Amino acid sequence: MAYNLAPLQNLIEQFERMQGIGHKTAQRMAFYVLGLSREEADAFANAITDAHTKIKQCKICCDLADDELCPICKSESRDKSVICVVEDPRDVAAIERTHEYKGVYHVLHGAISPMDNIGPDQIKIKELLARLSEGTVDEVIMATNPTVEGEATAMYISKLLKPMGITVSRLAYGVPVGADLEYADEITLSRALEGRSLI
Amino acid sequence: MAYNLAPLQNLIEQFERMQGIGHKTAQRMAFYVLGLSREEADAFANAITDAHTKIKQCKICCDLADDELCPICKSESRDKSVICVVEDPRDVAAIERTHEYKGVYHVLHGAISPMDNIGPDQIKIKELLARLSEGTVDEVIMATNPTVEGEATAMYISKLLKPMGITVSRLAYGVPVGADLEYADEITLSRALEGRSLI
Repeated sequence: MAYNLAPLQNLIEQFERMQGIGHKTAQRMAFYVLGLSREEADAFANAITDAHTKIKQCKICCDLADDELCPICKSESRDKSVICVVEDPRDVAAIERTHEYKGVYHVLHGAISPMDNIGPDQIKIKELLARLSEGTVDEVIMATNPTVEGEATAMYISKLLKPMGITVSRLAYGVPVGADLEYADEITLSRALEGRSLI
Repeated sequence: MAYNLAPLQNLIEQFERMQGIGHKTAQRMAFYVLGLSREEADAFANAITDAHTKIKQCKICCDLADDELCPICKSESRDKSVICVVEDPRDVAAIERTHEYKGVYHVLHGAISPMDNIGPDQIKIKELLARLSEGTVDEVIMATNPTVEGEATAMYISKLLKPMGITVSRLAYGVPVGADLEYADEITLSRALEGRSLI
């Protein structure tokens, strides 16, 4: 691109580093910034620094928090005897959207993946075990992703927890609601058959 | 979205304000920022403030510049007797990519559009006339967009310039190189017929 202006080029490169943002989009974003008022541009820059400085990990569940504890761990109305284990803070948000789950969470920040050199020590399994050692938890729901890595992580953790006398469950597999059976893949469909229930 | 964290929510909203960025993408971007190191996040925030503070308009051609003059107006090797008039700094970059044009530019920062309340005074026409009054310019190439607004702007400016004895030309219309005739629209095709040349 023929922009010989270092500050503009630098901004385009900053946007371009984000996953899924190509050169054209990064350029459009940079021009958006140039079109902002001085106050808006400052607010944008501050939002980045702020989010980065103020957002930490909850001391209990390792979810994102702007305080020692996240809003869910702080809440009096959540059932602390059930822990739902997820890979990522975004998964917490996804489950919260169902408004069905009243327990608390534990965010692993990843899944065991020997291919990527991520072993049990690189994700927040120690922290989960520490929480369970207090003996107040009855059930752990494994809600890691239905991928090879997510499965392996769920299996690994469940093997650690069973000797502790804690019920370990796994999210149900099956056909997604509203989907077309015709387009369901074989593995999902065979899991849905296995897990069929009486009506 | 169930993020009760103000700094994160704020950052997502900042990204979401950009044209073409939906909620999911904005969220992905915000998580990208959280995943940065402290230095990287600061560099990102600085890039925004920097670009906004340091990028101004060239005193001559109104293109973007990080100095009084843009690199093209500063250059000794550009032919100052030909001015190419475009709507936007991005159009300058597009024409520069051809490596064919050796003249200078004038950026209007918009096109006349009564629908959007943009008249001749809202775009940089006065500045163009001031440049031409010096009498050193032989030709003005109108390279506004081939849209109704771009056309109207080109017509308006050419009517102002003709009495001044300046040659005014317009970019050629025709079928884009590499395109399929079958898919060319009627107007483009009829313009291509009109503008046919001997081979």
